[in-house]
Amino acid sequence: MPGNRAVAYKGPRHVEVIDIDYPTFELKDGPGVDPANVGRKVPHGAIVKTVATNICGSDQHMVRGRTTAPVDLVLGHEITGEVVEVGPGVEFIKVGDMVSVPFNIACGRCRNCKEGKTGVCLNVNPSGYGSAYGYVDMGGWVGGQANYVLVPYADWNLLKFPDRDQALEKIMDLTMLSDIFPTGFHGCVSAGVKPGSTVYIAGAGPVGLAAATGAQLLGASVVIVGDMNEQRLAQARSFGCETVDLTKGGPAEQIEQIVGEPFVDCAVDAVGFEARGHGADAGEAPATVLNSLMEIERSGGQLGIIGLYVTGDPGAVDDAAKKGSLSLSLGTGWAKSLSFTTGQCPVMRYHRGLMNAILHDKVSIAKNVNAKAISLEDAPQGYADFDSGTSVKYVLNPNGYIDA
Amino acid sequence: MPGNRAVAYKGPRHVEVIDIDYPTFELKDGPGVDPANVGRKVPHGAIVKTVATNICGSDQHMVRGRTTAPVDLVLGHEITGEVVEVGPGVEFIKVGDMVSVPFNIACGRCRNCKEGKTGVCLNVNPSGYGSAYGYVDMGGWVGGQANYVLVPYADWNLLKFPDRDQALEKIMDLTMLSDIFPTGFHGCVSAGVKPGSTVYIAGAGPVGLAAATGAQLLGASVVIVGDMNEQRLAQARSFGCETVDLTKGGPAEQIEQIVGEPFVDCAVDAVGFEARGHGADAGEAPATVLNSLMEIERSGGQLGIIGLYVTGDPGAVDDAAKKGSLSLSLGTGWAKSLSFTTGQCPVMRYHRGLMNAILHDKVSIAKNVNAKAISLEDAPQGYADFDSGTSVKYVLNPNGYIDA
Amino acid sequence: MPGNRAVAYKGPRHVEVIDIDYPTFELKDGPGVDPANVGRKVPHGAIVKTVATNICGSDQHMVRGRTTAPVDLVLGHEITGEVVEVGPGVEFIKVGDMVSVPFNIACGRCRNCKEGKTGVCLNVNPSGYGSAYGYVDMGGWVGGQANYVLVPYADWNLLKFPDRDQALEKIMDLTMLSDIFPTGFHGCVSAGVKPGSTVYIAGAGPVGLAAATGAQLLGASVVIVGDMNEQRLAQARSFGCETVDLTKGGPAEQIEQIVGEPFVDCAVDAVGFEARGHGADAGEAPATVLNSLMEIERSGGQLGIIGLYVTGDPGAVDDAAKKGSLSLSLGTGWAKSLSFTTGQCPVMRYHRGLMNAILHDKVSIAKNVNAKAISLEDAPQGYADFDSGTSVKYVLNPNGYIDA
Amino acid sequence: MPGNRAVAYKGPRHVEVIDIDYPTFELKDGPGVDPANVGRKVPHGAIVKTVATNICGSDQHMVRGRTTAPVDLVLGHEITGEVVEVGPGVEFIKVGDMVSVPFNIACGRCRNCKEGKTGVCLNVNPSGYGSAYGYVDMGGWVGGQANYVLVPYADWNLLKFPDRDQALEKIMDLTMLSDIFPTGFHGCVSAGVKPGSTVYIAGAGPVGLAAATGAQLLGASVVIVGDMNEQRLAQARSFGCETVDLTKGGPAEQIEQIVGEPFVDCAVDAVGFEARGHGADAGEAPATVLNSLMEIERSGGQLGIIGLYVTGDPGAVDDAAKKGSLSLSLGTGWAKSLSFTTGQCPVMRYHRGLMNAILHDKVSIAKNVNAKAISLEDAPQGYADFDSGTSVKYVLNPNGYIDA
Repeated sequence: MPGNRAVAYKGPRHVEVIDIDYPTFELKDGPGVDPANVGRKVPHGAIVKTVATNICGSDQHMVRGRTTAPVDLVLGHEITGEVVEVGPGVEFIKVGDMVSVPFNIACGRCRNCKEGKTGVCLNVNPSGYGSAYGYVDMGGWVGGQANYVLVPYADWNLLKFPDRDQALEKIMDLTMLSDIFPTGFHGCVSAGVKPGSTVYIAGAGPVGLAAATGAQLLGASVVIVGDMNEQRLAQARSFGCETVDLTKGGPAEQIEQIVGEPFVDCAVDAVGFEARGHGADAGEAPATVLNSLMEIERSGGQLGIIGLYVTGDPGAVDDAAKKGSLSLSLGTGWAKSLSFTTGQCPVMRYHRGLMNAILHDKVSIAKNVNAKAISLEDAPQGYADFDSGTSVKYVLNPNGYIDA
Repeated sequence: MPGNRAVAYKGPRHVEVIDIDYPTFELKDGPGVDPANVGRKVPHGAIVKTVATNICGSDQHMVRGRTTAPVDLVLGHEITGEVVEVGPGVEFIKVGDMVSVPFNIACGRCRNCKEGKTGVCLNVNPSGYGSAYGYVDMGGWVGGQANYVLVPYADWNLLKFPDRDQALEKIMDLTMLSDIFPTGFHGCVSAGVKPGSTVYIAGAGPVGLAAATGAQLLGASVVIVGDMNEQRLAQARSFGCETVDLTKGGPAEQIEQIVGEPFVDCAVDAVGFEARGHGADAGEAPATVLNSLMEIERSGGQLGIIGLYVTGDPGAVDDAAKKGSLSLSLGTGWAKSLSFTTGQCPVMRYHRGLMNAILHDKVSIAKNVNAKAISLEDAPQGYADFDSGTSVKYVLNPNGYIDA
Repeated sequence: MPGNRAVAYKGPRHVEVIDIDYPTFELKDGPGVDPANVGRKVPHGAIVKTVATNICGSDQHMVRGRTTAPVDLVLGHEITGEVVEVGPGVEFIKVGDMVSVPFNIACGRCRNCKEGKTGVCLNVNPSGYGSAYGYVDMGGWVGGQANYVLVPYADWNLLKFPDRDQALEKIMDLTMLSDIFPTGFHGCVSAGVKPGSTVYIAGAGPVGLAAATGAQLLGASVVIVGDMNEQRLAQARSFGCETVDLTKGGPAEQIEQIVGEPFVDCAVDAVGFEARGHGADAGEAPATVLNSLMEIERSGGQLGIIGLYVTGDPGAVDDAAKKGSLSLSLGTGWAKSLSFTTGQCPVMRYHRGLMNAILHDKVSIAKNVNAKAISLEDAPQGYADFDSGTSVKYVLNPNGYIDA
Repeated sequence: MPGNRAVAYKGPRHVEVIDIDYPTFELKDGPGVDPANVGRKVPHGAIVKTVATNICGSDQHMVRGRTTAPVDLVLGHEITGEVVEVGPGVEFIKVGDMVSVPFNIACGRCRNCKEGKTGVCLNVNPSGYGSAYGYVDMGGWVGGQANYVLVPYADWNLLKFPDRDQALEKIMDLTMLSDIFPTGFHGCVSAGVKPGSTVYIAGAGPVGLAAATGAQLLGASVVIVGDMNEQRLAQARSFGCETVDLTKGGPAEQIEQIVGEPFVDCAVDAVGFEARGHGADAGEAPATVLNSLMEIERSGGQLGIIGLYVTGDPGAVDDAAKKGSLSLSLGTGWAKSLSFTTGQCPVMRYHRGLMNAILHDKVSIAKNVNAKAISLEDAPQGYADFDSGTSVKYVLNPNGYIDA
């Protein structure tokens, strides 16, 4: 059996590459595995040799120590790879297929999956809603920042690329299909972006940049991205976005300078619960983004909330936030008849279309998020650099498929 | 010119019937009229002689002194009547038409109206979003708890009943089309109610009972209404609803006893910002309803938030609530991928269909909300009784159209 | 192994009950089995002991000899039963579960299934779109008018009833969930039926009556059913429908007498390609229904076309119809901006909600379609009676679960 | 009063520029005016001085003599202009506004308008559904290929450009907002085009090219345009479309060569009732396009039918087509569960967003359709050239606003 190196959480701001078992068609006990999932048979699974597997901002929540993630939890939910083995219950996916793995793990048999709500599958996480690979409190499915990973319900979950060579050629773009491109796109769809819309994206991290890319693909007339990090704002400008520098204060005034009114048609929260207040010296203020979006969203509009909000945050700034409570000016939203969509992106709803847009050169997601491939062994450095605010999307290359 | 008696706000918990001017096709200065609206010409208006005009829970917010409503503001936004005069710009509505007046005032010419978002018309309220008759801070259109009222943009706003005699015969039902029946129905539509859905409605006041009626009309399999007022819960049970007594604690456990799980498919907030906590002795706690709905809504579901939330509430229990801030457990909603729809019901989207359901005896909204006609002069007593929690929907009968 | 008696097609207007093999987890060769499906492994399947299995109007197309169905084809796609065996790939469905089987066979893994389009699954019918049990040219899955039947992709396809005793008590209603109730309902949803809508249903056979029931459940204000068979029209009137007698001519004039205008909000075609012209002596005229629906549908409206249209009909009245061509007045529809939805109902989209409506006594579908249980051995008589136009929905009772 | 020159129909293949009256706020009797509209007061109207007014393919149906258009009917429904006078009932549109006029005339007060179905307004055409300027059998509103034109219900219908200079600078693009850009876009929306979709557009005339542009703006991965006119196909290729040459036969095989399968995700009919058969020598065959689209559309898909189909066509090839009957293989569509959307594009639903896309340089509609400005007096030559199949979209410049 091949060796299997993997990126593991080792404590706050500490990740290491360790050796783990090669996967089998069973979910074995291990760090973070839900007791009710231990020993679960996975005949419907496929073993995927990773071609690309990215570091995600939501991994950082764990690595920063703001969750209850246990030591040795294997990280990684943004996985693209080659199928090397399939279980006896797999019918359509074949060994050799090049595939994108949605970060949502979904059974394809429950009521929510049947309704297309794969982000809240009822059968994969015994103590919550929905699941993801390598994530705390989501059932314990082993992460994919590794050489090999087990993908359950492979016929349902996997998206096969039509051609192997083409896939390898565009791998830096296609690897964004497992999470951030659909997630950003979902934010835009939830916000009602249509041809001609003006759009404001809060947050210029990789998900925010992916949302901006999604807004452009949907035909937005103006895409404005707000952040406090000038390097990230410059990245947004590099592909035609307007930007708002939030160290100078809230977004309304700067938006007005760009579009002529202090409102946009559509607003996306790509920040989530670790938000900071606006202004140069602002500290963490978790309701800042949502309250400011309610202010700058036009009446009758929709907010797409793809930034993660949690039910408990031990590292939060105050007692309310520690319980996941936010002080929201809902009255502002109500007066404007706003709608709000929250939650994980159901990747499967979007990945096929976005794949086609990539394969036919309609979108350059890798360039827009500044994707950079590094070796698996360099993952700890990648985590550190990403945490420092550098505007790079790190793509791990565990098995050498990606050319240097 | 005929006399015009009207119900006016006279200070906290004090309303009186006073004499006001007969309307003309101009919005004149008066209590609560936005300066920018003073002198506005209304050639597109119709003067309506009220047939029925109801007391609404949202009037009570003003009457309880929890707003900045000025003394002598004429109340009333639930209006049904007979057209007695039309302005020179009115083409399709005719004198003699029996009509329902949506409580939303809408111009029928702005971007939001063209999109069907008549609750946030851009042209009727110079200092806010959307408008209503007789309501503080909404432009100053004179209220309709009176003998006569001016309806602007009559061709756009008014719904004509097909037959005068039939309309008078069913007037106690049809009068609910101006606000609470569409509003309750909108809550259900926003919450995704479909045939077979299980539904929880927070609040058994008239709007909650109207929402329950709407849920039944939409084919819900189980409709559960929660409140702390036993008389109102009994009213809900009178037409086939299940009920939850919130003096016994939060709704989850009681819901489980009814449907076998602590979740419902669809949840509607028909309470709003004056919510109280759960339990026998609970005081005002404005986030209670929304937080409990996030708890009992199934994953992937939708919340219809028709209860009013405000941007400022001088009478609130704490400083945050005074500014309209609520401490919401958004993480709970995010984990379950919930969606939220807020705001005024765009009445025009629903009133024609609901009218047809009434006229063909598919629904008994008057019976369900326990409608009771009283004279205009008895309005002060009606306000007092309604405020005391009696489960009656008061319908004023200013011009004697309604038989005793 | 238990014996397995089954209803088989034996030639035009001739069905017989024959002995067939007890199912295994493989699709074996047999009458009508697509060569590409022979030997297909079905580890994801369940063997269902039929509790109820109905005769459908679309079976009649075969029995009348208007298709290329081979002799000994086992009929039956409306199946409700008890799971007696599951394949090794089945995870959630258990032996003893009481289940409804959607007539669509769907894989739960292809692009169409993931989009909820289970009526056009790409993986079950090697030479067409979508499939059904016991149906010509749909892959060869063995029909369920038998003691036992194999259901592939059981975790995906089957709807489990929550309680066995309750299911048996309401079995005559629940058996309609496999096809006609969702199909009729789909016609209404496709036609845009909402609370208050006026609805015209072409055809008062079981599917038409199910559509009428669906329209009522959706809150329609007036449901009008048209047919030439007075017994069937009387059945429609028995549960509150209005009726149009098409032996007297087209529907427009009679509709006007009912609703005051020669239009309805929503129109459903529950007839399909064996339509007859209007008037007392009209012969077969396959475009009649669609052309008349375009005439009586209001401008901007939608047509739900659930009646079956085929690509070839050897028994048709003229050469065009033999090739499945219809002479449609599309210009009429275009001038009115009509929309048209065709095809098999994707049962899975609706069956859970409709089950809940049945279980909570919100709808009486069995009574409305005049369901009558008969023994499996009496199936040939049932076919004959149904073909003669009697207004009865025949439910076969192969294993004695249904009380006499 | 200024003079008013206008393009008039003078008989089959004959148009002339004639003198007509300067408009007033009343619809006076004249060629093609519906008797019920004669003398209609239009206080809600605006008089628009045309900046650009285009020749449309649907004008050609009249000019070719295939309708009952009377001699001296003034043509033109694609109008962009400057408001020079407003009626007393106009409140928001001002003299000097630069505006786009939707070709649909809509009242903004009827049930259909309130639902956004402005293509089938109930109040503007006394003997049909919906209306357009200068079009036979649509009420008799005077056409806009003239110096001045009356626009009724100006506050409702007109789209104001935000800036006069910017509008004049981009006038060749903005003039397409009155009809073909929204119409083509509507075809794509009706066909379900989303990011990544593969799209087939039947017809490479201006509307087909506009549909192709719309598909690109919606993020389609591949846009294929089919026609028999090589010049028009070359035009489609000039902005990145793939093309199918229908003189070589039906589209399926050529589509397969482009996308690898003989299917597309979305199909648009931009041809209509004057369709010809496929192949080099094919004659007129009105059902050709629709039947071929049913063949090449993927299962579960949607067809957007923006090409005009009529209820009567005296010049048609056979008796059925003369009555507007088409021989459609509906069985093919039914087997694939296809949906069909027909009718006029409701321009107002799309024009604001498309305007923003133009103003922010997201789309080059003028270039894509090869727009060319000519003088009003050259209109007859423009009609002749366009009829000969040249791939040019002629824009008339009656008042010299457009630079040479």
